[in-house]
Amino acid sequence: MWLNRDIVSIGDLNKEEILQVIEKANSFIPYAKTGHPDSPLKGKIVATLFYEPSTRTRLSFEAAAKRMGAEVLGFGSIESTSVVKGETLMDTIRIIDGYSDAIVIRHPSEGAARLASEYSEVPIINAGDGAGQHPTQTLLDIFTIWKELGKVDDITIGFVGDLKYGRTVHSLSKALSHFNVNLHFISPETLKIPKHIRKEIEKKVPVREHLDLEEVIEKLDVLYVTRIQKERFPDPEEYKKVAGTYILKPSTVARGKKSMIIMHPLPRVDEIPVEIDNLPQAKYFKQASYGVPVRMALLDLILRGE
Amino acid sequence: MWLNRDIVSIGDLNKEEILQVIEKANSFIPYAKTGHPDSPLKGKIVATLFYEPSTRTRLSFEAAAKRMGAEVLGFGSIESTSVVKGETLMDTIRIIDGYSDAIVIRHPSEGAARLASEYSEVPIINAGDGAGQHPTQTLLDIFTIWKELGKVDDITIGFVGDLKYGRTVHSLSKALSHFNVNLHFISPETLKIPKHIRKEIEKKVPVREHLDLEEVIEKLDVLYVTRIQKERFPDPEEYKKVAGTYILKPSTVARGKKSMIIMHPLPRVDEIPVEIDNLPQAKYFKQASYGVPVRMALLDLILRGE
Amino acid sequence: MWLNRDIVSIGDLNKEEILQVIEKANSFIPYAKTGHPDSPLKGKIVATLFYEPSTRTRLSFEAAAKRMGAEVLGFGSIESTSVVKGETLMDTIRIIDGYSDAIVIRHPSEGAARLASEYSEVPIINAGDGAGQHPTQTLLDIFTIWKELGKVDDITIGFVGDLKYGRTVHSLSKALSHFNVNLHFISPETLKIPKHIRKEIEKKVPVREHLDLEEVIEKLDVLYVTRIQKERFPDPEEYKKVAGTYILKPSTVARGKKSMIIMHPLPRVDEIPVEIDNLPQAKYFKQASYGVPVRMALLDLILRGE
Repeated sequence: MWLNRDIVSIGDLNKEEILQVIEKANSFIPYAKTGHPDSPLKGKIVATLFYEPSTRTRLSFEAAAKRMGAEVLGFGSIESTSVVKGETLMDTIRIIDGYSDAIVIRHPSEGAARLASEYSEVPIINAGDGAGQHPTQTLLDIFTIWKELGKVDDITIGFVGDLKYGRTVHSLSKALSHFNVNLHFISPETLKIPKHIRKEIEKKVPVREHLDLEEVIEKLDVLYVTRIQKERFPDPEEYKKVAGTYILKPSTVARGKKSMIIMHPLPRVDEIPVEIDNLPQAKYFKQASYGVPVRMALLDLILRGE
Repeated sequence: MWLNRDIVSIGDLNKEEILQVIEKANSFIPYAKTGHPDSPLKGKIVATLFYEPSTRTRLSFEAAAKRMGAEVLGFGSIESTSVVKGETLMDTIRIIDGYSDAIVIRHPSEGAARLASEYSEVPIINAGDGAGQHPTQTLLDIFTIWKELGKVDDITIGFVGDLKYGRTVHSLSKALSHFNVNLHFISPETLKIPKHIRKEIEKKVPVREHLDLEEVIEKLDVLYVTRIQKERFPDPEEYKKVAGTYILKPSTVARGKKSMIIMHPLPRVDEIPVEIDNLPQAKYFKQASYGVPVRMALLDLILRGE
Repeated sequence: MWLNRDIVSIGDLNKEEILQVIEKANSFIPYAKTGHPDSPLKGKIVATLFYEPSTRTRLSFEAAAKRMGAEVLGFGSIESTSVVKGETLMDTIRIIDGYSDAIVIRHPSEGAARLASEYSEVPIINAGDGAGQHPTQTLLDIFTIWKELGKVDDITIGFVGDLKYGRTVHSLSKALSHFNVNLHFISPETLKIPKHIRKEIEKKVPVREHLDLEEVIEKLDVLYVTRIQKERFPDPEEYKKVAGTYILKPSTVARGKKSMIIMHPLPRVDEIPVEIDNLPQAKYFKQASYGVPVRMALLDLILRGE
């Protein structure tokens, strides 16, 4: 049952449902650049409420809605809203509920999207709630693997960078544990994947941790790189030391499989130097572009049902 | 004659015209969530120029335009505009006039919309000009009464809160004086309805003033609550005292008629506690949602005529 | 070959191509206020990436896209984007490339649009890059002359104001040098047209420089006024002296030809007093409105070809 469903956490979707999104997204690829010829969501309004800055997520939801024939309204920052007058999230949601057919929300506070879903009659799609969830990012990540490697099962994935705070890695690794995968987590000691997440995942799939990408690069089918944020380190010297060692080197990529794909949720800063961009393994811009068909699929499912 | 008409003040509309908007809005209710099947405003562009923050008004105008098939362009805050380069309102209006079929404007200065209407060839809709007017709020307020009570005549309305500065109350009470109503104004001494407004209204309908809502609650068909803004009080202690006594209590509502409706222009802060939200009398979110059909009706009238 | 072409500099277009845009724009005039009945760009998405504030350019591109049936997405200021997270222009462009069919970009750095065009597969339209180029402004300026005077050849044009920093004047005078025109540059000594630009232009058409508009007003078919920005002067006293002498007087206009047209790229501050606005010569608001058909023509050419 997809119709009017809230998509708050990737954990709300089982394996079969994830594959359903992927297959529909794939069928929409031809329309992701030209628009769906039937405008199946004509007459619908998608509200995009972005309480935090975003380029990729907001604009790819808008592109997805428009490629399906829907209209979009909302805000990209709170400066132009009644939030500055002290309005609560619950009240804003109950009002926008009256103006739209689905609400896409990004908010700095963990749990905001779940709260919104309790007050809204129209479906809520979580587009990132602080340290919490960002389920459509996870869906497009899985779609990228499926599309570029032809499968999600029987592959080995390495996550590298800040695995402690990165919600992207937490969600994706949990979702991948539905599949037959091997997971490697590569991070500095201080940015290791949280124990409770590791424990949850390793009940279902093999997990290994490493301090050095070189140890494991040869085995990987997917190298998923994330940003290491300076703000995470109390001591700037420690940041410098760590950041430097987590910059991806072309020589490291060269040691990996030819068929390996490099992914990144973007924006990147230094961790993937621009000379990597032209390697055939670099798929992060393609990954970003897959946000459109994946979100077209999801909007279609929750606004029209299966 | 509606075609190309400016809607600057609720005083520009007579009783018959107000009822015309209400009837058309009512006929659009089925389309307010699904879109008008004929897209009667297809090809039209509505410009929304918001010099001040707003969620409700801007987004409900955008929803209304899109549900009618029109396109929308504009800005939600002045940071992204040439206003920061020193452009005058008159010049901005004369330019946007060339890009759109109607202009919806919110501005912090009283009289801004009237001024805009003098420089624009396309119709101007005032979406709030400082302490001045906000006619579409008044129209949706009257629509809410009409829709929820089945009539606007022969009812008793109590306004409570800041009646001195609240433009919403000034406009609505003036518009209601076209009808056969009883009006009660309940406010602290320092926030009483301005004398010139009271005088104008009581020429046409019975008016009473009170310091305490409890005195009059049993008589009311409509309880219209407004925010008391801290900034209005030079002495924060006085604010605290007053604000506390103007928080609506469930026990007060319980003393009122079962059929009484509670309205609020929103955003609310503390004056209506969330436990009121679930009472059948609470209509303020429904009131906000009626902004869409009312604005659909108004856009249709001024862009296509009767 | 127009299809998918980048429009970065007016120098990218030859005389024949400029005239092609003008003719197509003229054919779109009837649709610039009503929308093109065939929605020839239906299904297309135009991204508007404005890294700097703008009212005119952004909204007229949006109006143009919508009048042609296209959809628009983007941002009007960088506060709501990942730019604040340190994302480079190149990365932003490669991502938006996946969400749109054409990208309109305004950026404070000269060369930004050219750089963007190197990373984008969809066509880039430069909507102003710092001291650099703003080719669609030049096209609408030429269109205004053509439309209001009936020709671009055999006319005399005077540019007045800040000719040193004004990219509008630099681009327009270069583009006009394709035609049979006489150019007069009127400016204070410190704001003269740069030598390298004068040299380039005077290879092709007669050029004269003046300190005083009165010397030359009688000869002009077009008086093109620009803003003198206070920030350009290290000494505020010198600014005051110069600014005052470059305010257009009705008596000066009266000395000119009856058929002379007054243009300005807008926003204006003091250099054209409002009493000029009602003179028949004043064409600057009409000029701004021509931005819509000119941009409709350009979008049609690059998204559908000739």
